Amino acid sequence: MAESFAPVRAEPLIGRLAIIGMGLIGSSLARAARELNLAGEIAAADRDEAVTQRVRALGLADLATTSAAEAAKGAGLVILCVPVGACAAVTAAIAGALAPGAILSDVGSVKGAVVDQVGPLVPGGVHFIPAHPVAGTEHSGPDAGFASLFLSRWCILTPPEGADAGAVALLRAYWEAMGAIVEVMTPAHHDLVLAITSHLPHLIAYNIVGTANDLEKVTQSEVIKFSAGGFRDFTRIAASDPTMWRDVFLHNKDAVLEMLGRFSEDLAILTRAIRFGDGETLHRHFTRTRAIRRGIVSLGQDKPETEKLKR
Amino acid sequence: MAESFAPVRAEPLIGRLAIIGMGLIGSSLARAARELNLAGEIAAADRDEAVTQRVRALGLADLATTSAAEAAKGAGLVILCVPVGACAAVTAAIAGALAPGAILSDVGSVKGAVVDQVGPLVPGGVHFIPAHPVAGTEHSGPDAGFASLFLSRWCILTPPEGADAGAVALLRAYWEAMGAIVEVMTPAHHDLVLAITSHLPHLIAYNIVGTANDLEKVTQSEVIKFSAGGFRDFTRIAASDPTMWRDVFLHNKDAVLEMLGRFSEDLAILTRAIRFGDGETLHRHFTRTRAIRRGIVSLGQDKPETEKLKR
Repeated sequence: MAESFAPVRAEPLIGRLAIIGMGLIGSSLARAARELNLAGEIAAADRDEAVTQRVRALGLADLATTSAAEAAKGAGLVILCVPVGACAAVTAAIAGALAPGAILSDVGSVKGAVVDQVGPLVPGGVHFIPAHPVAGTEHSGPDAGFASLFLSRWCILTPPEGADAGAVALLRAYWEAMGAIVEVMTPAHHDLVLAITSHLPHLIAYNIVGTANDLEKVTQSEVIKFSAGGFRDFTRIAASDPTMWRDVFLHNKDAVLEMLGRFSEDLAILTRAIRFGDGETLHRHFTRTRAIRRGIVSLGQDKPETEKLKR
Repeated sequence: MAESFAPVRAEPLIGRLAIIGMGLIGSSLARAARELNLAGEIAAADRDEAVTQRVRALGLADLATTSAAEAAKGAGLVILCVPVGACAAVTAAIAGALAPGAILSDVGSVKGAVVDQVGPLVPGGVHFIPAHPVAGTEHSGPDAGFASLFLSRWCILTPPEGADAGAVALLRAYWEAMGAIVEVMTPAHHDLVLAITSHLPHLIAYNIVGTANDLEKVTQSEVIKFSAGGFRDFTRIAASDPTMWRDVFLHNKDAVLEMLGRFSEDLAILTRAIRFGDGETLHRHFTRTRAIRRGIVSLGQDKPETEKLKR
């Protein structure tokens, strides 16, 4: 797809927007809501007092509080932007404040566990529609967000069976207003797709950076200097928020272990080819992986490296 | 380091420059030599007639030929830009054409094997000084190169013991004139450093893209769509030239197998932590890998992702 932009709305899509958790994603949602006029009022909560102060200083919300329930009160849309493992506790804390007809959503990278843990805590009359914007950077906190983070990125909705069609349509419209492309799938399929496109890559990146860190004969300074040979892309991924990623792996265990098993089998084959000098197997493997890359570039999900490097 | 540029020279550093192999690296060398006035004359050779025609069409060299020996004749500096596995054969082919006093160098990602295989073929009086610019993109061929590819990137020289100091100084000056930062080390240490910073990352990236390709329950189109979650960085690396990388793994076997062994041990620990829900081990591991990233960004070897994404 071509580079695009999200237009400012003449009228807000919802009344009060409550964002619980003001890190990279939460603060990007707040900025987008403000810049694009998506909500009549923005209420932001974070359990960390220093973060709410920063939210106030940055002018990201009309209300910044450490009380999630206070932020959620009277909101038409409440979005949980906390690590997956914290979603149930936050839902329990705000359940009493949720108005009938409100939409409760999240941005977690795992959906099955969220549905299982949060679903039973949602009061009757509140529409629970989990979501996952596939977007991010390696930075964390309220200063890291920006309004265009979701532009031209996919956002996956996993509405439970029998979800209110109007509520799903409104949430879809809300993400589309930020420039996101919305796709609907089941929580289980989401967790499988993300296990390979996101969770396993992160685990592998964290792992290789750890391996590099522990070498006796290559210094950390050498690793840093010569990282342009491929390593630096892994370090970017491995600089992502540790708490968020711990929770992802704890809550998408089965799919990640399945992908890890396949990855390790495949790696054993390449290892063996290297050990026995089987250049044909290596060349065949290295050739077929180019097709996926072409698909990603042509779909606008990345730019060729050359465009980034030329200067 | 800060963003910089390489100035155009008033006088060329050398007379005739011969580049053998006009792919990404060779054509970047030719462009840099032309733009920065580094050589009095540029002779380019490629065994592929279509490539030499393209070199002529692009005006990258004064001479474009399929004969490596013809290009090397009378050159003050000959740079082999062919896959590591082809260096010995090319050296044998040009040995008779090399003038006494000429510098023979290369750009291979492996140094020990090149020294072992090429060294004995170099005629007396010719200065053989292997080199490796740690720079590249996922693209190949004469159209893929650009003059600033080596700017602010490291170039590692591995001169043999007793190498002519003047020749080493000239080759260093030549790379510095293209904006590269030169470091000298032994071939064995080079191969160990690059095994972790470049070779293992490429193998892992090739591997995970292959794993994704083979899934039955996740389509290739889904992998492509949701690649922004981390996977796309791996696909870029896994789109690199298959022949070049086959040769790297065949010629740096011991160091790569050593790094692979450590990587697999470390991955077993993370896998076990996921299986048994050991969040503390995961969090501890994910936290310590951030330091290396900060080092890379502060050394100017990459930009924060946010700078690339904001638009």
